[in-house]
Amino acid sequence: MGVIVQKFGGTSVGSVERILNVANLVIEEKEQGNDVVVVVSAMGKTTDSLVKLANDITSRPSKREMDMLLTTGEQVTISLLTMALQEKGYDAISLTGWQLGIETEPVHSNARITNIDPSRIQGELKKGRIIVAAGFQGWTKEHEITTLGRGGSDTTAVALAVALQAERCDIYTDVDGVYTTDPRYISSARKLSSISYDEMLELANLGAGVLHPRAVEFAKNYSIPLVVRSSMERIDGTMIEEEASMEQSLVVRGIAFEDNITRVTVFGLKNALTGLSAIFSTLAKNQINVDIIIQSQTDENCTNLSFSIKHNDLEETTRVLETYKDDLNFTHIEQESNLAKVSIVGSGMISNPGVAAEMFQVLADNDIVVKMVSTSEIKVSTVVDRENMVKAAEVLHTAFHLDQNEVKESLV
Amino acid sequence: MGVIVQKFGGTSVGSVERILNVANLVIEEKEQGNDVVVVVSAMGKTTDSLVKLANDITSRPSKREMDMLLTTGEQVTISLLTMALQEKGYDAISLTGWQLGIETEPVHSNARITNIDPSRIQGELKKGRIIVAAGFQGWTKEHEITTLGRGGSDTTAVALAVALQAERCDIYTDVDGVYTTDPRYISSARKLSSISYDEMLELANLGAGVLHPRAVEFAKNYSIPLVVRSSMERIDGTMIEEEASMEQSLVVRGIAFEDNITRVTVFGLKNALTGLSAIFSTLAKNQINVDIIIQSQTDENCTNLSFSIKHNDLEETTRVLETYKDDLNFTHIEQESNLAKVSIVGSGMISNPGVAAEMFQVLADNDIVVKMVSTSEIKVSTVVDRENMVKAAEVLHTAFHLDQNEVKESLV
Repeated sequence: MGVIVQKFGGTSVGSVERILNVANLVIEEKEQGNDVVVVVSAMGKTTDSLVKLANDITSRPSKREMDMLLTTGEQVTISLLTMALQEKGYDAISLTGWQLGIETEPVHSNARITNIDPSRIQGELKKGRIIVAAGFQGWTKEHEITTLGRGGSDTTAVALAVALQAERCDIYTDVDGVYTTDPRYISSARKLSSISYDEMLELANLGAGVLHPRAVEFAKNYSIPLVVRSSMERIDGTMIEEEASMEQSLVVRGIAFEDNITRVTVFGLKNALTGLSAIFSTLAKNQINVDIIIQSQTDENCTNLSFSIKHNDLEETTRVLETYKDDLNFTHIEQESNLAKVSIVGSGMISNPGVAAEMFQVLADNDIVVKMVSTSEIKVSTVVDRENMVKAAEVLHTAFHLDQNEVKESLV
Repeated sequence: MGVIVQKFGGTSVGSVERILNVANLVIEEKEQGNDVVVVVSAMGKTTDSLVKLANDITSRPSKREMDMLLTTGEQVTISLLTMALQEKGYDAISLTGWQLGIETEPVHSNARITNIDPSRIQGELKKGRIIVAAGFQGWTKEHEITTLGRGGSDTTAVALAVALQAERCDIYTDVDGVYTTDPRYISSARKLSSISYDEMLELANLGAGVLHPRAVEFAKNYSIPLVVRSSMERIDGTMIEEEASMEQSLVVRGIAFEDNITRVTVFGLKNALTGLSAIFSTLAKNQINVDIIIQSQTDENCTNLSFSIKHNDLEETTRVLETYKDDLNFTHIEQESNLAKVSIVGSGMISNPGVAAEMFQVLADNDIVVKMVSTSEIKVSTVVDRENMVKAAEVLHTAFHLDQNEVKESLV
């Protein structure tokens, strides 16, 4: 008899009906003879309502008090789900972050878990109880309430799975698994039955959005198998584990893409030696996330530099660069908007040096101009015109055989 | 520089505007040079909404999970009030029941406080901070979240005042003090500038409703002066303290009344010796509260017994008595509804044996028939017809000179 950790996000617990549906999924797992720990987020729009209340009072609420406020959201959900399980005749108990023994660093709104004392949970499991755990929250040594930031409930689920040496951690969402690419745009997108942690990490960071990268990394470090599956439909999801056992023949496992990318180019940067770090530390200090960076040496003392940002950050980026123009010592900046990023991901690339070349060839064959390139061991990202984004994803999806059926396997 | 505890109920914190108003009242006290601990309840209708959510899931939610659910209400309020204080430039910190060190017995929904460890609060006060404390809640030695039941926030406020050896505990409500009688019915009702704990206890138990009896008893045991005052208007309230310093000449201090009283009479009770305890323990087991009890010995082996209950409990009372009729061994029951209870309260009665007689005389002079009587050292209660209730209260109010002005004094 093993421990299974299940996690349900805000949409999955967004109403009383959905909470009753979640209770059934929990009971099914319990009836398999497993010890079940179920991690839940705040109900649907609860967090937004609480944030609005705070904003009605102050435009700059303290992070500590926001943690105090927002953690009530999961506390409501755990009590309601526990009542639902009890109503259906099962012994269950709700536990808040501090009752779960989730200790974090003394930082508000974005704390990392430092330790989990699983003794309380283990004691309750021994009594045969289902544990209903509040996601997203913890406490510090000084008994302060903290939250784990974005994707916090995913992190809670994986951290509890690690602490309890769980067999598996099931992440229930509003999609039914991880796809080779976004099925809303590419009709031949296919659900993967399995994928490796590293591939998932690249896809998660690239905006595939089903699972927070932090949780994937945590699961990878402790080799906890993750399953992404639907809370609405009873179908197999996608298993994320050390080695993707299936589809070894596929070099590329997924295509990720996102639009609203803008390229900024800084011309005539004089301090070739220190200019690069000066520019990016200035942008970082102003909370601007830079993605792809390309430096081209024009002559001995003068460099041109391009980088990509989210279009939303363009105004602030321009403002910051112009403000520090004299210090940073460059001649002028230019920008190009309406761009998109299209990436191929697959751990098979490590041993297949020709994959990037093949990607560029496929794009060129389809008259798609590549404006920037960035690579990692298991990923190649390109920046193209926004209007070419879906077409690029589509032709790459076909060229790398992602539309072909994989061997079927049952996950659970 | 002393500690002042302030308590604001659900109506006083029912909206963002009211929370900002409460922040101003807290700041005024802080600006007097005091250390301030402010205890708050859940916002207005929050508790009702949470109860509705629970009832949508189950008709019999477990008490533990209800405590888990309902304690989020105060947690929301403390964070919002703290943000409001910080926005106005004051250093403040919110603390939940367990962060306040409020330890209770291991009972859900109606726990009593067993101990308060004030070290955290004292540490925060030393930093010059205003403490914003969640009312109504505590935790057990086993780290379970508990609630204090009805009037719980009043109890929290008084308990913190005791633990911190506060100078005073101010209970802010939607009325501006304790009155000689209910001003909604009796136009000559007058606000009292002071009243003793015992008198307040009798008035609270009689349904005057401004303050929970448990909190008054707690304050009495530790001699914490309580002030009942308005959160809406800046006017003096009523001081509750050991000896009501003013109005010593007044024997009667207040008139309380409530309707919806029903009298039940049990005829021909055979077991004169054990019948009384049998009947009332049976009713108690079925959660029926009995108020006045009158036993009349009819002959050696047979008793008639009358008691008053709330009209709402009549159906259940009849059902219980009929169910156990054979065991209880009586011939039949009768009931009379549309009754009301009118009581006079005053600690001066202890040394004035003629007060009850005077009360009966006044009622008789006004053709008001008394159907039941109950007395304590500082109270005489009578049951009369519902239609005579307000008239009885009015004539008693005048007869005992409660409509005459008392000496004015400033409270704070």
